[in-house]
Amino acid sequence: MSNTTTNQSWGGRFSEPTDAFVARFTASVDFDRRLYHHDIRGSIAHATMLERVGVLTAEERAAIVQGLGEVEREIEAEQFPWSVELEDVHMNIEARLTEKIGVTGKKLHTGRSRNDQIATDIRLYLRDEIDVVAAELARLREGLIELATREADTIMPGFTHLQTAQPVSFGHHLLAWQEMLARDHERLLDCRKRVNVMPLGAAALAGTTYPIDRHVTAELLGFERPAENSLDAVSDRDFAIEFSAFASVLLMHLSRMSEELVLWTSAQFDFIDLPDRFCTGSSIMPQKKNPDVPELVRGKTGRVYGHLMGLLTLMKSQPLAYNKDNQEDKEPLFDTLDTVQGCLKAFADMIPAIEAKQDNMFEAARKGFSTATDLADYLVRAGVAFRDAHEIVGQAVALGLREQKDLSEMSLDELRQFSDAIQADVFEVLTLEGSVAARNHIGGTAPDQVRAAAQRARDALATLQQEA
Amino acid sequence: MSNTTTNQSWGGRFSEPTDAFVARFTASVDFDRRLYHHDIRGSIAHATMLERVGVLTAEERAAIVQGLGEVEREIEAEQFPWSVELEDVHMNIEARLTEKIGVTGKKLHTGRSRNDQIATDIRLYLRDEIDVVAAELARLREGLIELATREADTIMPGFTHLQTAQPVSFGHHLLAWQEMLARDHERLLDCRKRVNVMPLGAAALAGTTYPIDRHVTAELLGFERPAENSLDAVSDRDFAIEFSAFASVLLMHLSRMSEELVLWTSAQFDFIDLPDRFCTGSSIMPQKKNPDVPELVRGKTGRVYGHLMGLLTLMKSQPLAYNKDNQEDKEPLFDTLDTVQGCLKAFADMIPAIEAKQDNMFEAARKGFSTATDLADYLVRAGVAFRDAHEIVGQAVALGLREQKDLSEMSLDELRQFSDAIQADVFEVLTLEGSVAARNHIGGTAPDQVRAAAQRARDALATLQQEA
Amino acid sequence: MSNTTTNQSWGGRFSEPTDAFVARFTASVDFDRRLYHHDIRGSIAHATMLERVGVLTAEERAAIVQGLGEVEREIEAEQFPWSVELEDVHMNIEARLTEKIGVTGKKLHTGRSRNDQIATDIRLYLRDEIDVVAAELARLREGLIELATREADTIMPGFTHLQTAQPVSFGHHLLAWQEMLARDHERLLDCRKRVNVMPLGAAALAGTTYPIDRHVTAELLGFERPAENSLDAVSDRDFAIEFSAFASVLLMHLSRMSEELVLWTSAQFDFIDLPDRFCTGSSIMPQKKNPDVPELVRGKTGRVYGHLMGLLTLMKSQPLAYNKDNQEDKEPLFDTLDTVQGCLKAFADMIPAIEAKQDNMFEAARKGFSTATDLADYLVRAGVAFRDAHEIVGQAVALGLREQKDLSEMSLDELRQFSDAIQADVFEVLTLEGSVAARNHIGGTAPDQVRAAAQRARDALATLQQEA
Amino acid sequence: MSNTTTNQSWGGRFSEPTDAFVARFTASVDFDRRLYHHDIRGSIAHATMLERVGVLTAEERAAIVQGLGEVEREIEAEQFPWSVELEDVHMNIEARLTEKIGVTGKKLHTGRSRNDQIATDIRLYLRDEIDVVAAELARLREGLIELATREADTIMPGFTHLQTAQPVSFGHHLLAWQEMLARDHERLLDCRKRVNVMPLGAAALAGTTYPIDRHVTAELLGFERPAENSLDAVSDRDFAIEFSAFASVLLMHLSRMSEELVLWTSAQFDFIDLPDRFCTGSSIMPQKKNPDVPELVRGKTGRVYGHLMGLLTLMKSQPLAYNKDNQEDKEPLFDTLDTVQGCLKAFADMIPAIEAKQDNMFEAARKGFSTATDLADYLVRAGVAFRDAHEIVGQAVALGLREQKDLSEMSLDELRQFSDAIQADVFEVLTLEGSVAARNHIGGTAPDQVRAAAQRARDALATLQQEA
Repeated sequence: MSNTTTNQSWGGRFSEPTDAFVARFTASVDFDRRLYHHDIRGSIAHATMLERVGVLTAEERAAIVQGLGEVEREIEAEQFPWSVELEDVHMNIEARLTEKIGVTGKKLHTGRSRNDQIATDIRLYLRDEIDVVAAELARLREGLIELATREADTIMPGFTHLQTAQPVSFGHHLLAWQEMLARDHERLLDCRKRVNVMPLGAAALAGTTYPIDRHVTAELLGFERPAENSLDAVSDRDFAIEFSAFASVLLMHLSRMSEELVLWTSAQFDFIDLPDRFCTGSSIMPQKKNPDVPELVRGKTGRVYGHLMGLLTLMKSQPLAYNKDNQEDKEPLFDTLDTVQGCLKAFADMIPAIEAKQDNMFEAARKGFSTATDLADYLVRAGVAFRDAHEIVGQAVALGLREQKDLSEMSLDELRQFSDAIQADVFEVLTLEGSVAARNHIGGTAPDQVRAAAQRARDALATLQQEA
Repeated sequence: MSNTTTNQSWGGRFSEPTDAFVARFTASVDFDRRLYHHDIRGSIAHATMLERVGVLTAEERAAIVQGLGEVEREIEAEQFPWSVELEDVHMNIEARLTEKIGVTGKKLHTGRSRNDQIATDIRLYLRDEIDVVAAELARLREGLIELATREADTIMPGFTHLQTAQPVSFGHHLLAWQEMLARDHERLLDCRKRVNVMPLGAAALAGTTYPIDRHVTAELLGFERPAENSLDAVSDRDFAIEFSAFASVLLMHLSRMSEELVLWTSAQFDFIDLPDRFCTGSSIMPQKKNPDVPELVRGKTGRVYGHLMGLLTLMKSQPLAYNKDNQEDKEPLFDTLDTVQGCLKAFADMIPAIEAKQDNMFEAARKGFSTATDLADYLVRAGVAFRDAHEIVGQAVALGLREQKDLSEMSLDELRQFSDAIQADVFEVLTLEGSVAARNHIGGTAPDQVRAAAQRARDALATLQQEA
Repeated sequence: MSNTTTNQSWGGRFSEPTDAFVARFTASVDFDRRLYHHDIRGSIAHATMLERVGVLTAEERAAIVQGLGEVEREIEAEQFPWSVELEDVHMNIEARLTEKIGVTGKKLHTGRSRNDQIATDIRLYLRDEIDVVAAELARLREGLIELATREADTIMPGFTHLQTAQPVSFGHHLLAWQEMLARDHERLLDCRKRVNVMPLGAAALAGTTYPIDRHVTAELLGFERPAENSLDAVSDRDFAIEFSAFASVLLMHLSRMSEELVLWTSAQFDFIDLPDRFCTGSSIMPQKKNPDVPELVRGKTGRVYGHLMGLLTLMKSQPLAYNKDNQEDKEPLFDTLDTVQGCLKAFADMIPAIEAKQDNMFEAARKGFSTATDLADYLVRAGVAFRDAHEIVGQAVALGLREQKDLSEMSLDELRQFSDAIQADVFEVLTLEGSVAARNHIGGTAPDQVRAAAQRARDALATLQQEA
Repeated sequence: MSNTTTNQSWGGRFSEPTDAFVARFTASVDFDRRLYHHDIRGSIAHATMLERVGVLTAEERAAIVQGLGEVEREIEAEQFPWSVELEDVHMNIEARLTEKIGVTGKKLHTGRSRNDQIATDIRLYLRDEIDVVAAELARLREGLIELATREADTIMPGFTHLQTAQPVSFGHHLLAWQEMLARDHERLLDCRKRVNVMPLGAAALAGTTYPIDRHVTAELLGFERPAENSLDAVSDRDFAIEFSAFASVLLMHLSRMSEELVLWTSAQFDFIDLPDRFCTGSSIMPQKKNPDVPELVRGKTGRVYGHLMGLLTLMKSQPLAYNKDNQEDKEPLFDTLDTVQGCLKAFADMIPAIEAKQDNMFEAARKGFSTATDLADYLVRAGVAFRDAHEIVGQAVALGLREQKDLSEMSLDELRQFSDAIQADVFEVLTLEGSVAARNHIGGTAPDQVRAAAQRARDALATLQQEA
């Protein structure tokens, strides 16, 4: 019987060729070819190590390196004959190498397996992509810090429960976003440490009988160390999950910013303007200008959460070591990377272009009794216990609601009917500027604190980038 | 200022063109072009309705229908000039139509919006794909019923907690799988009812001022009825979520079957053989034959769960009506459809080719005291209360474990030391065949019941397919 | 060695007692005792059937029924001695029954297992709880329909992308919510069909050797039919997942309503008032009145989604038949039921108490060029192609933005500079009332359509309730 | 109208009492009372700081500290009058304090809000619980390392795709598990760093007008630093999500171990024995001994994944600052902690008690051509290219399958028909011991490597614990 699988890497013991649909269904080359550069890089390091330990000759190594270079150039010129029959990126590249350099190509796979090879490829790839993510994250953080510095003195209503709570600095609000991203940045670098460990040498699952030197390969590839255990090295996909968890929290943060941007561009809030170039219109309603970028980013949160759930499900209950299930690790990881990089780029471009409508923000803050807490604090300073002060101000607010009058619009007599402790100097604490300036401690919204916090954020970012 | 957005459908009120990255980031044409056929089909029905109510002339409608036909042929011949600047499948097709037939093409969008158009396209598309899924599901169910009929008399160990529990018919086990799929099939058809409702006519969100007749369009497109509320019609993505929930339960079922197939092909169980054409080998271990298809299907469970989670997250807390977030509904839905269809096809092809290793199954069932319950039941029939009988048999098993001897291998005297109620006829109930045949009620594992159940399953499937 | 496990149902073959921590860790009685009523109900039906087929005598059955009644009264009087050592609700009840009626109590477990017993209990319980959910859902739908009828003529801005889109009837918006719930209601009843199938008789996994009559038990318990396959019957948890999927979509809907309620009660929207009794305040800000109920319901969405994911994960890759993993099915299901019932009750109480601030809504609709589409449609009726009309109106809006002037505030001359087709009658289509009334087709926002839709919704609800 | 809400902390501006159901529905005291100790600890530190900055007198502080001590003792003696009307743990404790010490109790809430208070309480609580988790994790790691050392020379089949792959050391397999947990341990400590930041001083959202010193409070409570931004401090729930992500990966690892433990205790594998005290039986099948602990832990994976998804969903799209939604953060976090601690304790107790059935493992490894790779490597050393060697061995395996003969059972002549390169010394490489010993490099399965790896693991654990 003619065996159509002989071009495959494992045909010897099989009695019939793979079913055509099954071959397509189980092949990964359509998506794992994205790893070609890192696969070749890993192969070169592997060949170099094999030469050092005497498994390959210098000539063999040279031929392999030369051949892999040609293969890479073919791929980048889009002239590479990708084949689904060859299953995956590894066999495609190796088969082409052997076409080019002959039997020496077949020696490259000595002392390794596709199981440790793919784990190595993904880690090399993810490590590079993490560095791209980190750079965009830093750019977004810088944009926020600069905008916050510019808007330190801009007053807006702070909300809890989406109800007017207390006036805050717009810059302070922007730095709250920045703090979220600072944590993401730390988590990303913590994740990177655990990505940067080398599976190569685990071979199929148990290590190899060749006299390999894994420290050499690790050093050539910039890994911090070889993985400690071969069974674990080929079975571990924690790094993909940890990156997905990082990405999920990041997208959660971006969804929170997006929600606020969408609110703020609504006719009802009207706190900011997004330049037209970040918006699109409607095919039917000629007046529409839609905040597409934040909406789409908010929508992409689901995609990233979904991939995290998918990866966790994938790994649940898998016995050691490699199982075919694991082929499903790549698409969610790649899509998460694309999504994270796109969303960060869009935000890093857009944030500095936000135009604050400072008058609208100020007007909004003047409504909704936003200085009621200041009045309560005033009473406490005059000797009233806080809980009693709260009750007194609550009654003043109830009057204001009935008469549609803010606290600052009431007369001294009106205010004093609730407490004798109120004096003429009360009106100073009822201004927005006074309210904001009074929260003058680390973490508080006073403009001076905002400027100081922005400077600390700048320093922290610089420190993190140096350590990385 | 030259406005590079004038080829778009909403440029009038904008003062600067869309940022190039933003245009790419927010465009959907790369994935929603998959809907071209249903978009065109919907447009033809819309134009036909517009003619009937007098908004278009017969000539205009004819030109539109003719032009759309040309567009479709271009797309299918892969000669269509897809453009990211035109954002989505709708504007690409409409712009090309207008190039072909002139200003009449611009009239097609009368009385509709992209918001109701995309909702209609997805529903038309999903309805067709559901029918494909239903057909594959039926094929798989048939394969299981046939195999179950063939294997009704094959005895294997039934497991709970993966410990040998009681002997069962292999056919009975296969029909358990079939029952899972029968529920999936019902859920799919329940979902189809709710997919088959027409959003068209909702326009952007509020309906339209044109004298449209939505019953006409619904009939032309085979929808059961027009959607009742325009705001809901453009905001509703329940159908995608409901389909994803169906798919998640289906994949959960396939993952359970896969788990068992993987177990059964292991050297330790060795209950079945999967033909080589459904398996692949190892690049390093020459002896390996891996059950790739069930492993990969098991792995794909995560992907489908993830999409469900993604869609639920997407829709959480969205205010009415359409928001850009919803553009994220399509990729998970499309990928879920591809995954479901691929997995069902693979299983429907593979299941009939399973070869039961009947001797191995029988041998395995003979071990592990699988007829202990039968002995307890025997004692109950002899007048012992069930709980006491259980205790008696438990002590006999403890002896068997110590002496490495199955119940059927003990002598009558050995057995009688635990209870006088045991007589010589006890050995009949300790055979596997006797044990299986004795569970002779609807739902039980007796071979006759299995055959009867297979026939009922065949009938139920036929009924469901007729109703659909 | 003294065996402390002898009070358990399976001690015979064990050589040492269960570790104390393990006993606690693996026991389920702390949460499954909630099923006591349905467990007893199932046991009575089982005993009745056993009598009919001659396995129990009439006296034995009578003693069991009498004893179980006493047990139930003890439980309801909170005088029942629940014991963790007895593992679960089943063994607690059976052990107490045997204390009361002696050895006959031990006969109750004849022909069944805890595996089919627990599956039966949950289905009976869930069926009852579904009926409670359905009633609350109906009450909420009724509240929405009544409020929508009252507010059919109230005009508010309709939004897409949270930007003012077109004016709509507030009643129309409320009916959009109602449509979501109508689908949930259908899904709930579809789920109920699949819940209402009886596992009893499956015994441990394979059926039983006793001459049971499952049709009798099914009829006694009001099940539609016995489950078809014993292995499936004890392994199937689809019903819990399907209910969770229903609940997830329902909570998604409630989260969308909640989001809008929160927006509408903000100072910026100020569209509605929620009575104080549905709100709470702040311990520090005396002026706050927070929309706690919708916020909390929105927050509970995560909990319900999480349980769905938990259950799907639980069942992934489980081999047949029962595994201990399945003990984890109950807590998420119970918590989902509690959450759904609480949220529905809170909403059904709150919705009818919403006070629309009709003037604020109307004023908001007057801003944001909400009748721009009407102007475009006007142009189309005057012979302009829709896409050209859209461009013309877009330019008019651009002018309005620059000059801060709505379309209805422009003079005829100002409007005519964009198109000669505009005549004096244009101002009729630019009113909010005219705009809303013009969308006068099924599904459209015209008040007459809203009233008709409310009536259809009332009828559909009545029909669904009759069928149930 | 009598206002029944006056005992609440915010009644002043309200005109009607909270609806009774709403009060119950929105109250959190039923679950947040678990935080009482940390709430009191935070209050004492807050009062101490208020005294230092002159807001409270020394007498006032002393009264508060004394009163809070009494409250704590009441709670621990279960004599505390918990009240749902008082909403949460904070108001319950404060109200009781004021009953005890009078008006001074009302001063405690000066300069803080429940928003920063609850965030502080959870962080203090979680920090303590993380330390408990870390200790159990270390105990489990130690148990694995010791067992691995004992079993370094035990040979078992290593699997890929659950097919026999290559022989490995059982100790090596156990160390693969240990490596997973080592990463979890690192992630836990990374998470702890981000938990250990103090929100107190953020007050409701903007900071406070009192002259607080947050560095003092942070030091008193052992926090590393005060949070940088008040808006972020009260809105941030990253720490709960990050802990949940840690827990999800940990449970995923435990589910993998569980899966293998369940497989290994099956009759088909029979590789290990779990002592009876970690197992339970069946109420119907007297012979059953079920591996309940690993099954239940595997099942609990879903619960923990679900909580992660729930928390991510909860936070998606929330605008700043605190919203009532966030009340939903506690139950999933508490349940995750309980689950993680229970599962780790169960495993840490059980793992050292595993009894390896070394003979069964060895016999299993001898089957399935597990040394085929060794033969291929042998050929490579004889000068054959790896890919050709693979093909040659594949053909030998195909023969072995046909003739049911392992490679080591073939004669030299039989083997030489596939390659002349095979010599008499081939049989050395075909033994299990030879195969395992030959994988003698860092990460490989050679017993000496296993012992060395165990020692490195011991050292790494010690280092991590010292740093923590």
